[in-house]
Amino acid sequence: MNNNPVSTEPYKGVRDFYPDDMDIHNYILTTWKKVVESYGYREYTASILEPAELYKAKSGDEIVSEQTYTFTDRGEREVTLRPEMTPTVARMVAAKRRELTFPLRWYSVPNLFRYEKPQRGRLREFWQLNVDLFGVDSVQADIEMMAISHDIMTAFGVKESDFEIRLNNRKVTNYILNELYNLSDSDSKSISKLLDRKSKMSHDEFQTKLKEIFGQDRSAQAVEFETLVNSQNFDEFTSRIGQTASEHEGMVEIRKAINGLEALGITNVVFDQSIMRGFDYYTGLVFEVYDKHPDNRRALFGGGRYDELLAIFGGDKLPAVGFGMGDATIENALETYNLLPKSVAEGGQLANPIDIYICVMSEAEIPFAQDMAQKARSAPNNLKTVVDYSLRKVSDQIRSADRAKARYISVIGADEVKTGNVKFKELATGHEKSLF
Amino acid sequence: MNNNPVSTEPYKGVRDFYPDDMDIHNYILTTWKKVVESYGYREYTASILEPAELYKAKSGDEIVSEQTYTFTDRGEREVTLRPEMTPTVARMVAAKRRELTFPLRWYSVPNLFRYEKPQRGRLREFWQLNVDLFGVDSVQADIEMMAISHDIMTAFGVKESDFEIRLNNRKVTNYILNELYNLSDSDSKSISKLLDRKSKMSHDEFQTKLKEIFGQDRSAQAVEFETLVNSQNFDEFTSRIGQTASEHEGMVEIRKAINGLEALGITNVVFDQSIMRGFDYYTGLVFEVYDKHPDNRRALFGGGRYDELLAIFGGDKLPAVGFGMGDATIENALETYNLLPKSVAEGGQLANPIDIYICVMSEAEIPFAQDMAQKARSAPNNLKTVVDYSLRKVSDQIRSADRAKARYISVIGADEVKTGNVKFKELATGHEKSLF
Repeated sequence: MNNNPVSTEPYKGVRDFYPDDMDIHNYILTTWKKVVESYGYREYTASILEPAELYKAKSGDEIVSEQTYTFTDRGEREVTLRPEMTPTVARMVAAKRRELTFPLRWYSVPNLFRYEKPQRGRLREFWQLNVDLFGVDSVQADIEMMAISHDIMTAFGVKESDFEIRLNNRKVTNYILNELYNLSDSDSKSISKLLDRKSKMSHDEFQTKLKEIFGQDRSAQAVEFETLVNSQNFDEFTSRIGQTASEHEGMVEIRKAINGLEALGITNVVFDQSIMRGFDYYTGLVFEVYDKHPDNRRALFGGGRYDELLAIFGGDKLPAVGFGMGDATIENALETYNLLPKSVAEGGQLANPIDIYICVMSEAEIPFAQDMAQKARSAPNNLKTVVDYSLRKVSDQIRSADRAKARYISVIGADEVKTGNVKFKELATGHEKSLF
Repeated sequence: MNNNPVSTEPYKGVRDFYPDDMDIHNYILTTWKKVVESYGYREYTASILEPAELYKAKSGDEIVSEQTYTFTDRGEREVTLRPEMTPTVARMVAAKRRELTFPLRWYSVPNLFRYEKPQRGRLREFWQLNVDLFGVDSVQADIEMMAISHDIMTAFGVKESDFEIRLNNRKVTNYILNELYNLSDSDSKSISKLLDRKSKMSHDEFQTKLKEIFGQDRSAQAVEFETLVNSQNFDEFTSRIGQTASEHEGMVEIRKAINGLEALGITNVVFDQSIMRGFDYYTGLVFEVYDKHPDNRRALFGGGRYDELLAIFGGDKLPAVGFGMGDATIENALETYNLLPKSVAEGGQLANPIDIYICVMSEAEIPFAQDMAQKARSAPNNLKTVVDYSLRKVSDQIRSADRAKARYISVIGADEVKTGNVKFKELATGHEKSLF
């Protein structure tokens, strides 16, 4: 046994959730679940441990090679702590494909792991809402993903004017790069990756890298492409690419999505040719929800269509759309908007963790206090009830009740035991009530 | 990119929770939370990643050396996937000891990891309710742990006659081994470990190992000790150890606990000198809840007092009691008792995942169906609503609704759009209703 004191620090880049933090965490998870369940989505989950090969087949390269926690277990199996949930849900659907009835509307709130330098909103472990719809080819499925995203933002109290849904289509990007500019698959892929990082680069840096890929002799095309990417809206983009290109399947889907969302009353949708959403498996519409608040301008979350991912398990491909939304990012955003829930004591919506805190004057009254507590806890009262066994001075017990965020206190002494007459005092108001 | 099909198998010894499995899992977690919150316990959590040193300081040796997932991260830190939650909660309490108000009533439902051979009820990843009370010296805290354990069992519908709470006190065991039998600390520890495995050994095997530790010349004492351990009840045990020993502090605590539980109406409590509860950190009363069902005779879960664990972080010790209850074990037990919840369709208590499934006859009716869905989902209706975008034959859509466990269906065609008159049919009864 080691006699040096053990550190009380958690592992680097992860969080301890004390009860007050947990209240916030649970508020976020509960809000997520309420919205997605209203759309008929069912919860699933899986282990954080996955065979490492699951991520080698198809993912963003950077995440697999540099950011996963992968180790070899005692039985020589290579194991990864899941860095994202999509490969897992694809694996689960592929495994029971013949038994499941499509379409499937599934969600999960897994914790995910990425080995990266911890910073605000980027942690080594975070929770993520994952929403996926399998088996629907129609753009209605993509619209549903964006409608749910929109509803989650408004359920948190964010105003529609404070965020926007940025939309693109991988099919359009691929068509432009491969067909209009005649770039090789490998150059197209490099440009897609460049677009994905565009918002984090200066104009000059982006331009330089673009020219490197297009090549010295095609630098005019690189400039033209950048102008195209920077189109302010969908109409401008459409006119730039010309009539034939504007009738491409991918363009039709974008138009349908924008119109479909408008029919649902969702108008904060913008086309943005630079939206890529990292992962290699996306095949169609991709979107991200962007926070427009001046203090927090950034992409909050996003997703897209990945119709081919299931084929890695050896079966046919399957239409699939989904998105993922991390807890730390939305928590930071809600903090900026002063939308995190407050306790009841602060005038907020978080319930008191304790309804009744029973102070006991001497050991003789403990059985009476316990009887009362049992009655308070059970139906139909269902009151969260604590008995203070410390036998300290009543004033000290009341101070503990207050710090423990109890709503009511009750003091049990010889008189209460004799008469059976018990009062409950609301700490916030000082009013006495009869509770049961 | 790898072109061989990826396996759809999960990692060995862990579970995939499909939505129907998740319903059961959530039922167990919700029942746990409801009972512990009724006692005023607040939820906390932490990362599954912990510095490895946390477990080296004080735990059961076997778990640390043979059963943990420990690896070195890319920054050369030794990391462990937590095999139990008690060291984590002790670390968190020690870290904020000066800010926190005691007593603390905390709970968590972490997933835990143990590298062992998977078998029924023993998995490499499982979920565990952890309930801990810090800062109460009195045996009332131990009584509260056992009362909560009892209430959880009855909340699941298990009859009191089908389980018992087995109780012991580490202080009594240590006193008997050290003082009455004059055994060294190391021999006492070996016997404690032997007692912990007693229920899994034959009488002969136990006797042989006991004699080995007592030594050749003291085999009569080994026999006497075994008789003592096998005492049928607390009175018999008390009379065997004699007057002085029966007044030992540890014996007084056992008596108080049994009487205190009886005062709460909990009478299925038995003394059992062989109860040890594995971990080295226990210092006082220890208990386990034992399933008496002939098909499932086994310890379900347990806990005890660990007043000295916080000292490993360099501060003073702190009174602490707690218990942990695994999900797989209780799920197996409830299965034996036929107490797992069934869906509403099977006459059970699990709600339908979908309230309204809207079938759509042609593309023209989709906007109307979506408007209706939005109205159904939002307050005050709050109905879980799905729109089927497949435009398949209505009979196929209805079959999908049934398989998706929808409660009501609604079919939207040109007539419904024209008249605005929409009907909802309950699939189980065939009755038509007006829902909003």
